Amino acid sequence: MRRVGIVDLGSNTIRLVVYACEPEQHYRLVDQIREPIRLAQGSATSGELSEAAMERALTVLRLVRDYAHDTHLAHVKVVATSAVRDTSNGAEFIGRVRELELDVDVLRGQQEASLGVLAVANGFTFEDAWVVDLGGGSVQISRMKHRGFRRGRAYPLGAVRLTELYLHADPPAKDEVERLRAAVRDQLSKVVAKIRKKPDPVVAIGGTIRNLARALQATSDYPIGQVHGLFLQRADLEALLARLLQTRVKRRARMAGIKSDRADIIVAGALVYETLMREADLDGLHVSGLGIREGLLFREMFPEPHLIPVVRKFGIQSLFSQYPQPVAHTEHVRFLSRRLFDELEPLHGYGWEEAQLLDEAAQLHDIGLAVGYHGHHRHGAFLIDNTLLPGMTHREKALITLLVRYHRKGAPKPGPMRRLLGSGDQKRLETLTCCLRLAEHLERAKANRVKDIAVKIRKRRVELTLTADRPTPVEIYEAEKHAGLFERAFGRRLEISSS
Amino acid sequence: MRRVGIVDLGSNTIRLVVYACEPEQHYRLVDQIREPIRLAQGSATSGELSEAAMERALTVLRLVRDYAHDTHLAHVKVVATSAVRDTSNGAEFIGRVRELELDVDVLRGQQEASLGVLAVANGFTFEDAWVVDLGGGSVQISRMKHRGFRRGRAYPLGAVRLTELYLHADPPAKDEVERLRAAVRDQLSKVVAKIRKKPDPVVAIGGTIRNLARALQATSDYPIGQVHGLFLQRADLEALLARLLQTRVKRRARMAGIKSDRADIIVAGALVYETLMREADLDGLHVSGLGIREGLLFREMFPEPHLIPVVRKFGIQSLFSQYPQPVAHTEHVRFLSRRLFDELEPLHGYGWEEAQLLDEAAQLHDIGLAVGYHGHHRHGAFLIDNTLLPGMTHREKALITLLVRYHRKGAPKPGPMRRLLGSGDQKRLETLTCCLRLAEHLERAKANRVKDIAVKIRKRRVELTLTADRPTPVEIYEAEKHAGLFERAFGRRLEISSS
Repeated sequence: MRRVGIVDLGSNTIRLVVYACEPEQHYRLVDQIREPIRLAQGSATSGELSEAAMERALTVLRLVRDYAHDTHLAHVKVVATSAVRDTSNGAEFIGRVRELELDVDVLRGQQEASLGVLAVANGFTFEDAWVVDLGGGSVQISRMKHRGFRRGRAYPLGAVRLTELYLHADPPAKDEVERLRAAVRDQLSKVVAKIRKKPDPVVAIGGTIRNLARALQATSDYPIGQVHGLFLQRADLEALLARLLQTRVKRRARMAGIKSDRADIIVAGALVYETLMREADLDGLHVSGLGIREGLLFREMFPEPHLIPVVRKFGIQSLFSQYPQPVAHTEHVRFLSRRLFDELEPLHGYGWEEAQLLDEAAQLHDIGLAVGYHGHHRHGAFLIDNTLLPGMTHREKALITLLVRYHRKGAPKPGPMRRLLGSGDQKRLETLTCCLRLAEHLERAKANRVKDIAVKIRKRRVELTLTADRPTPVEIYEAEKHAGLFERAFGRRLEISSS
Repeated sequence: MRRVGIVDLGSNTIRLVVYACEPEQHYRLVDQIREPIRLAQGSATSGELSEAAMERALTVLRLVRDYAHDTHLAHVKVVATSAVRDTSNGAEFIGRVRELELDVDVLRGQQEASLGVLAVANGFTFEDAWVVDLGGGSVQISRMKHRGFRRGRAYPLGAVRLTELYLHADPPAKDEVERLRAAVRDQLSKVVAKIRKKPDPVVAIGGTIRNLARALQATSDYPIGQVHGLFLQRADLEALLARLLQTRVKRRARMAGIKSDRADIIVAGALVYETLMREADLDGLHVSGLGIREGLLFREMFPEPHLIPVVRKFGIQSLFSQYPQPVAHTEHVRFLSRRLFDELEPLHGYGWEEAQLLDEAAQLHDIGLAVGYHGHHRHGAFLIDNTLLPGMTHREKALITLLVRYHRKGAPKPGPMRRLLGSGDQKRLETLTCCLRLAEHLERAKANRVKDIAVKIRKRRVELTLTADRPTPVEIYEAEKHAGLFERAFGRRLEISSS
């Protein structure tokens, strides 16, 4: 495994992330150092980095250098963005960073934007999208076409900058808020018109949107842990903003989900998103857990144009490789569940979307064994919940989690995940669970005993005839226990025999 | 890793368990087949196994044989207990089992009892104890002395048998219950007198007590998942029993924690424990998650007398080996945290018990990384909660879980685990967390940079002087962030410097 160190020198935070990765296969965060050093502090008005801010940054960068040395991290890439780029003494500061023998680049606006687009292209399954990256110094809005960066612009509307320019009262005063909104409206008017004309999905990246999403998750008992893939509804953001606007900074710092070192600037950030959504008439935004840092990682991991060929497959396989289970059993459960799904198609009528969900759940069904045998269906669901799965909506993630949760036993119940499901999903869950459950029990001895399944659909019953080299009593016995689930899912009795 | 298959042919249930184990090192359940076949059904009155019950058992045993063959399980040991031993046609049944080419033994009462005692000797740190094993056919009460089986007797008071003999109404009638209680009192009067004379801990094993404990956990939001090590208070059991006695069997089957196939016999089982506790004047029972099956496993894993040398250490090391992390870092955090603990002794005054808890938490502190980096302190706590740790009370388990939970950041808060803690434990938690936290951050680069720590305790401050080959700014910087925790724990300012 290669280890890659990336340092993001932002307006608000310096963060070193260390990834272990196998090129083109998978990656994993293994360590991080995060320091909220506020490099941009004071620069919105003065136009330059203050000596104190530079000193804070250099102290942390010295730590990063020592850490890299001590942990034998071969290469650390440092990138600076708006805070450095847009100040008159940025070049001087970079010179001082280079004295630490760190490899540092100041990203041009276009470079930064295209890294954000790369993160979205590899984190979602959208072909075209608008990508909004709100940092401390600026907000970058880019157009993604065919998973590539088309064009984009940075606007000086970062959360640190706007806070310094507009929000001085605590909590912010009404007229301060209105002047900030007006500035955002004014600066974004042209791009807003374009978004209205091409209403592709809008994806938001960066620390501000992740924090807002986490605050929403925390206050609403949201049933999925990761923020990536969450669809942040405009009404929910407006309600959260209303609460933030009434709360003093000290109490905001203790609000569930809000990082305390962002408590002061989160209001400005939320106001930018709120104004953008209202002006562009958006129902909501897709939240990305991936950003610039992952964009840089993808550049290291994948050859030009650095795109993951099939995003969802990559995510599922990464997760499987993290908690590996015997491949032969997993592959055979995939095969058998797919056979059942295909053969029962006349009864359920589902198509490739459902087939894909079933296949993904089949691949992940046993990963919970890495935690322990007892309750491994629940452990598997827990691991999926705690993993960023690219290319998946939260509805899809909920369905896969529930399929893994119920792959062995029990009547599938969505529980708190119900709110993420759509109409017909309860039935969908029951049908797919049934295919996976039978496949799992027809593979009870985990020895590929059942080679194939022939299915005959009769008026009142379904006959499964198993092909095997010798009798398969264990498998039939175990599978028949789930005849009740089958009857609920397909309205027919289940009969299993050997050929 | 060796795989060992054990089949327990009980009065209520047949269960195959498959363990993967490294002799004398660790073991892990990897699969199980559990079938509630009620072998003893009807035998309480007739004195013999019914043909139907034998057929049910043979069907499952054929499955077990096929499963073993298909999974290349070299050896499966089948043991039968009271249901077979105490019936006139038990030998005939065993002959039919042998025809399946399964290696089956009928355990004599003494053998069964000594396996139960072995499970307790290796599951707890008691030198002497009373061991109560309530099965479907009989209850076995044994005396453990110096971790060995001293003597014991079986009483025909199993849960299946008593249900058949006494409880016919649904829910049970008052006079039925009273007659059952009288029979228990009568048969146990001599052993009860002995328990009153030698009031050593009473440890309960078997499916009934595990189920009762799970029902209590489920109804009281109990903060620890495992039942092993739970101290079941008499008042709690009495309250649960009162509820069971008012509930029809159909509804009992749906009560949280109660296995549906035990719903009919759980009342008789609870009545035996209740009567025993009242007659022997016990405050409560220690619940064991280990039983006969594990006793058989320990015989395979450890040379005579099959005892784990140091029970708690074995449990912690097993857990660590299941989610392995770099050993050098773990060992160094153990070393540094112990150094801090010892040097700060004049301030906290704690002894070897606390030193042991700290050391165990230090060994486990990073196991959550096996789940993922983000929130690995929470993942570690989750893994500990889901693992049977032998030799540990739930108070100790709670403290270790909390130490791992707070080893990186945050003010340690017991939350729902508070009810398991004793007086002074909040302070204890704060102090030990502080030692572990500083050790972890003084090992920030995970490169054994800080070789040793000299501690000077002053009137208003404590000076830590670090020994290292070259400056350790990363470590000092990270550790100093936790000066607030230190001040709360020790009432003194923290100062850190390099020698």
